Amino acid sequence: MGPCDYISIAFTSFSARPLENTRSHARAGITLPRGTGEMPKREREDEQFYVRVGQTLANGETCIGRWPHDGPCSPDEVALLLIDFQKDFCHPDGYLAKVGGDLKPAQKAVKKVMPVLEAARDAGVMVFHTREGHRPSLIDLSKYKKWRSCMAGAEIGMTSQTGSKFLVRGSPGWEIIPELAPIEGEEVFDGPGYDKFMHTDLEHCLRCAGIKYLIVAGLTTEVCVSSTIRGATERGFECLLVTDGTAGSDEHLCSAHIKTMLVEGGIFGTISDAIGVCAALKRVQMASID
Amino acid sequence: MGPCDYISIAFTSFSARPLENTRSHARAGITLPRGTGEMPKREREDEQFYVRVGQTLANGETCIGRWPHDGPCSPDEVALLLIDFQKDFCHPDGYLAKVGGDLKPAQKAVKKVMPVLEAARDAGVMVFHTREGHRPSLIDLSKYKKWRSCMAGAEIGMTSQTGSKFLVRGSPGWEIIPELAPIEGEEVFDGPGYDKFMHTDLEHCLRCAGIKYLIVAGLTTEVCVSSTIRGATERGFECLLVTDGTAGSDEHLCSAHIKTMLVEGGIFGTISDAIGVCAALKRVQMASID
Amino acid sequence: MGPCDYISIAFTSFSARPLENTRSHARAGITLPRGTGEMPKREREDEQFYVRVGQTLANGETCIGRWPHDGPCSPDEVALLLIDFQKDFCHPDGYLAKVGGDLKPAQKAVKKVMPVLEAARDAGVMVFHTREGHRPSLIDLSKYKKWRSCMAGAEIGMTSQTGSKFLVRGSPGWEIIPELAPIEGEEVFDGPGYDKFMHTDLEHCLRCAGIKYLIVAGLTTEVCVSSTIRGATERGFECLLVTDGTAGSDEHLCSAHIKTMLVEGGIFGTISDAIGVCAALKRVQMASID
Amino acid sequence: MGPCDYISIAFTSFSARPLENTRSHARAGITLPRGTGEMPKREREDEQFYVRVGQTLANGETCIGRWPHDGPCSPDEVALLLIDFQKDFCHPDGYLAKVGGDLKPAQKAVKKVMPVLEAARDAGVMVFHTREGHRPSLIDLSKYKKWRSCMAGAEIGMTSQTGSKFLVRGSPGWEIIPELAPIEGEEVFDGPGYDKFMHTDLEHCLRCAGIKYLIVAGLTTEVCVSSTIRGATERGFECLLVTDGTAGSDEHLCSAHIKTMLVEGGIFGTISDAIGVCAALKRVQMASID
Repeated sequence: MGPCDYISIAFTSFSARPLENTRSHARAGITLPRGTGEMPKREREDEQFYVRVGQTLANGETCIGRWPHDGPCSPDEVALLLIDFQKDFCHPDGYLAKVGGDLKPAQKAVKKVMPVLEAARDAGVMVFHTREGHRPSLIDLSKYKKWRSCMAGAEIGMTSQTGSKFLVRGSPGWEIIPELAPIEGEEVFDGPGYDKFMHTDLEHCLRCAGIKYLIVAGLTTEVCVSSTIRGATERGFECLLVTDGTAGSDEHLCSAHIKTMLVEGGIFGTISDAIGVCAALKRVQMASID
Repeated sequence: MGPCDYISIAFTSFSARPLENTRSHARAGITLPRGTGEMPKREREDEQFYVRVGQTLANGETCIGRWPHDGPCSPDEVALLLIDFQKDFCHPDGYLAKVGGDLKPAQKAVKKVMPVLEAARDAGVMVFHTREGHRPSLIDLSKYKKWRSCMAGAEIGMTSQTGSKFLVRGSPGWEIIPELAPIEGEEVFDGPGYDKFMHTDLEHCLRCAGIKYLIVAGLTTEVCVSSTIRGATERGFECLLVTDGTAGSDEHLCSAHIKTMLVEGGIFGTISDAIGVCAALKRVQMASID
Repeated sequence: MGPCDYISIAFTSFSARPLENTRSHARAGITLPRGTGEMPKREREDEQFYVRVGQTLANGETCIGRWPHDGPCSPDEVALLLIDFQKDFCHPDGYLAKVGGDLKPAQKAVKKVMPVLEAARDAGVMVFHTREGHRPSLIDLSKYKKWRSCMAGAEIGMTSQTGSKFLVRGSPGWEIIPELAPIEGEEVFDGPGYDKFMHTDLEHCLRCAGIKYLIVAGLTTEVCVSSTIRGATERGFECLLVTDGTAGSDEHLCSAHIKTMLVEGGIFGTISDAIGVCAALKRVQMASID
Repeated sequence: MGPCDYISIAFTSFSARPLENTRSHARAGITLPRGTGEMPKREREDEQFYVRVGQTLANGETCIGRWPHDGPCSPDEVALLLIDFQKDFCHPDGYLAKVGGDLKPAQKAVKKVMPVLEAARDAGVMVFHTREGHRPSLIDLSKYKKWRSCMAGAEIGMTSQTGSKFLVRGSPGWEIIPELAPIEGEEVFDGPGYDKFMHTDLEHCLRCAGIKYLIVAGLTTEVCVSSTIRGATERGFECLLVTDGTAGSDEHLCSAHIKTMLVEGGIFGTISDAIGVCAALKRVQMASID
């Protein structure tokens, strides 16, 4: 990768508006290498370039959060993780609609995530996609999961009216929607679980790729997104959830799970909206063009 | 284990009142205990003794859930899992109060769980306890967790006014409260994570002990309880959350996380209140006395 | 599954010849199949039909092992696990030959495993296959693994003389050899690791399928076979290694790793040769035909 | 940590004698920071300070290996991992002797590891200890492990002639031998498994501490040492096994497992003897004194 900027995002409130006055950190140049016996002087850098939590901003608001927590990181260490943007969770004949989910929030989230995905690609930030899906034999479908999906009206593995088998790999409904479909060079992770770190090689790939920070968007907030962010946190990845880039079966649950991110000082990481994330990603892109 | 009954719980609504008219299986001669060489005849038993989902009950209500989903199980396969009932999450000088949590819900939950614990012990159901806590060296405290707990007002590892180090093993605040403290024969699992299956031998012990079903209560609903139930579900354990035996930093979040259990037909298992769980456990006990 | 026999294997020595005089359990009326509502009466059966460890056999030899350790199990609980029988480990242009491995042992092992695979299929025992392989992007190839394979003469991901990329998914050399290729209904597990339980859904699938016992054969003994058997043992699966159905880069290492199975009373399970395993599988098949 | 040297070890043969002429890398000063867009110029550094694999050394021998594989690392990233140096594996009344293990190799290994431990402490390299052991309730002892240890003559959990319960936490035989006992600041990991990454918080602690490289010694080579090195490799830690700092129940097995480290270009890492490791650790210490 060529010369590049650092990623950093700061917030003024729980609605997570991006800070207009967050300055770029390009060419800070004062960070010393690990292994020389000196740690990068992040505190000093902070004073000069970085908004501190609690600091009064130019617009009079108070900065209440930042990500990553300890100062800007290299874009090489960041990935955009898009969770289960599959037809089965977005389309009227899909699994989510059949188990009683409202599709409008998902469709709104897709629109918000599209520019984030574009900005990540432009900035050279890695993109990972996940798909919930079972082997066609359904050997990986527990009796309980089969039963509860049946009770809810969309038994996993059964054929819907449109001929797709709910959440079965290779079935049309299992595909990622075209708006957010992976392009060459973007990895996809298939698994039967809600936490995408379980039963997949996601952790292994993130570690091999040197990723430490995850920008997360996806479906559904209360199930796979929450479980995956929890799994990431247990494994030491620092997460940022795109608040308007996630949706679930119910807006109240969705909002509660977003709030849960922030309890106890940010127990599962932090949040931003799509505009804030795009702005940070664009600063990276511009710096790398210079 | 001597002769014993099976555990089963049925519900009429999302508020999870226990069904008064759920009949005891104590003297159902055909449901013999594990170990006698005969498995229960589940299909037949179901028709005769067991409330089906969707069935109209004597009181006119409709049964909307049962646990385990596929019929009664042996008490040998069930464990009561009590999560983080530590002073740090219940006392005014503890960690949770310092990060802004309301203690009243936790204190109410403790009262509800006490009879559940007693009933489990009387019924011979295994009890497992967990404690969130870090090694005194804090080597297992990630930089992020340290930072966010500091931001929230109770940096993990720091000494509180009463001389306890927040969430440090061996510190007074880290101990389980006396009301729910483990007794001889009950295992305790210490870990630095929220999902108690991570970084511990919990899964290994549950499997060695033949446990398949977990009755879960604990603190806090939105963090460790939710994460652990998710972790259990990924690993194939079927969970029942005691709705009034769990509490968190905020009642709205708590309620949302309980509701999340039930989306998509019961994605993370099912729920009951303490009275319902006690009733099921007492049926086991009575049968084993006969 | 229809009526069926139980699987059991007994041994007289570390060379693991099958016991000629091990009696079939096919018509042991008291060992009924799982699902009829009756469990086998293991203690009594043991006395009458089952060879005990330490017992003197008709041929004067002493029985030194049996599998499963606690008496026969249902074929539904057993799987045959075939590890990495890929062209890259069997063919002269493949990865193993290029890193200096001798192919003759692998080719001999293939011949021994063919009848075992056939017997498992005939007996209705589940078959699982694994493939070592990396994503075409090589994102899951650690810098170390890339480097050491390069040092050894077959850098993973590089194109061989015959146009196949070493150990890359989708490449000709990565395919399972035709003699042991999976057929419809047999699952395949792809992963970048040596322990096939790491970074895959193998454990999840085995648990969903109710598998408790693994008959293991594959390549190479000292790497993937040993690592996978260790991984299985940690997770509570009881393993039997087919001694002449496994091979590695060096016969001395292979033999040492087979011996390692048996230290400390069978630390990683037990062993048998292909003839012994076939005989046990055929008894199952015959019983199910009756 | 103050100013310090890098760790590097080079070898001339599989007997892994340390290279006398490996020069110190202290104050190389040419490594650029991660995040500036430039990777450290390891290749150039290599030419000047570092022995390449294949290079002819001053003494006429050929360098056949180095660790870490891609050039020197910071001592902060290295840990010494001492596996199961417990009385049960070293003393005549302990578990290993009772299952037929020869104790002399273990006792020789202890003598070799003592100076390594001292050198690591002097160099400020972190030290981690493990203990194999079960909870006093034996709930974490699988039926199979209990049975096979019984067959081998030392049933885990049973009381030996000297009053210690084999491999039970808190029992005298389970303690680490005084010669290698942990001191203040050194963490100990207790688990029921052979791979110390399973059912423990070892991985979590290593990651929190920033450890990437492991120098491994311990008992027994063929069981816990091999399993743990395999587990470390799957998780991306780069291992060096101290060849004369490990021992097992049988010298032939031990030697085969050491050789296995090196197949396919060093599949599980590399090896050195205690003298080589001490020399590398002393260079670190000297540099930090300057």
